[in-house]
Amino acid sequence: MIVVKIGGGGGVDLDACCDDLARLHGAGERVVLVHGGSGPATALGEALGYPPRFITAPSGVSSRYTDARTLEIFTMAVAALNTQLVAGLQARGVNAIGLSGPDGRVLEGRRKEAVVAVEDGKRRVIRDDRSGTVERVNGPLLRLLLEQGYLPVISPPALSPDGPINVDGDRAAALVAATLGAGTLVLLTNVPGLLREVSDPASLVETVTSETMDEALALAGGRMRVKLLAAREALAAGLERVVIADGRGERPIARALEGRGTVVSGAWH
Amino acid sequence: MIVVKIGGGGGVDLDACCDDLARLHGAGERVVLVHGGSGPATALGEALGYPPRFITAPSGVSSRYTDARTLEIFTMAVAALNTQLVAGLQARGVNAIGLSGPDGRVLEGRRKEAVVAVEDGKRRVIRDDRSGTVERVNGPLLRLLLEQGYLPVISPPALSPDGPINVDGDRAAALVAATLGAGTLVLLTNVPGLLREVSDPASLVETVTSETMDEALALAGGRMRVKLLAAREALAAGLERVVIADGRGERPIARALEGRGTVVSGAWH
Repeated sequence: MIVVKIGGGGGVDLDACCDDLARLHGAGERVVLVHGGSGPATALGEALGYPPRFITAPSGVSSRYTDARTLEIFTMAVAALNTQLVAGLQARGVNAIGLSGPDGRVLEGRRKEAVVAVEDGKRRVIRDDRSGTVERVNGPLLRLLLEQGYLPVISPPALSPDGPINVDGDRAAALVAATLGAGTLVLLTNVPGLLREVSDPASLVETVTSETMDEALALAGGRMRVKLLAAREALAAGLERVVIADGRGERPIARALEGRGTVVSGAWH
Repeated sequence: MIVVKIGGGGGVDLDACCDDLARLHGAGERVVLVHGGSGPATALGEALGYPPRFITAPSGVSSRYTDARTLEIFTMAVAALNTQLVAGLQARGVNAIGLSGPDGRVLEGRRKEAVVAVEDGKRRVIRDDRSGTVERVNGPLLRLLLEQGYLPVISPPALSPDGPINVDGDRAAALVAATLGAGTLVLLTNVPGLLREVSDPASLVETVTSETMDEALALAGGRMRVKLLAAREALAAGLERVVIADGRGERPIARALEGRGTVVSGAWH
């Protein structure tokens, strides 16, 4: 089984992804697609006069401040992308089925009660942020659908005891892959993989193992760091490999499965 | 089995509906919820500076002109309502699962190739309208989910060979009910049922049978007429009864099942 995550930040060729997914599905491979929607959510928020605000954690990591209205906007934008992907797969003969996290509790998590933000050098505690972490995936529902030939297309938000919450798509995909016992997790992004020099596409780090993970994390900033952490979580849960690969251009998933990108593998504890 | 349709036009008490659905589900009844989203879609279109335009057919019936952008806005608004309903049911312990028409091809239909509109007394043929009619419901998928204890929450758009299309929610609900062999279809709206005098809530028509359907249709305008036609379709397909009832206030579904509203029943051919 293969789990593929595509970002919602733009750059990934959605038609090329649907082509690849249809080929894999047609060849009898069981596939689950996970996607985000940060790019469309930002665009919709701006169109509605409610642009996103980003908060910076003391660690320096930036994230979307998700109040109730931002979550509603995010939910709408992600749903439009979900329908686009499902319709794209259906047009290629794949019986795709879109699931938002609350649907059948496919993604369950917990809201962060407090988020610490740094603004103008001062720390501020934010308590109304509707984001958190995925803790559980409804494996039986996904297996039921996969057994019947459906291709699940999963997106945040997740469901928490406090209602829907925004969660990180890469880590959600890692937990989906771990729960289903997938062999490979493909994380598509808009760079060739982990780069030694962000400005130099030729500086690709081709492999990361448990021995070199700390070194890799030291190279990675922002979103790439989250992808490496998601990869580590997936491998610790028993996956064989995670490929962080370029989603731009033709055959992005096929190329990732050929090992083009940063392949993370090895034994983890 | 019971199929409940709630309009998206406002007025229906969503929390009271979720309470009723949770009670029915908890009592072991199999339930499917279908909903529209015309109200939120209009509000979102206006907020985005792309308000809906309505076209009037030669018959006098008005409908939303659905170009690509309008369909996208409709899809987003309906998805937000779907997530709200699913989360509301989940909070009440019901494992609800939201499905848009393209998901697993749960609602399949056909696009109208041409729509005739009357503007300033002149007829105009519109060929880019993305709306049509539901022709098929994925019964096996719904039965699979119902058997596992899920409560499906279904909404337009439907999937057509030309991509997603806007379809009428009442007629979609009628076909869902017919496909599943449901006993009762409840159509909740923001009036007490079919009224002899639209301005007089006391003029409720309590029963409609095959003998009195033509008379009922002559009384009904606009959306109520579509509900009666949907009811006729559902009964012709074997349903026992359709209740057109008030969705405002407490226990709207329980009251409808007690026969409060316009009960349509009888033998149809």
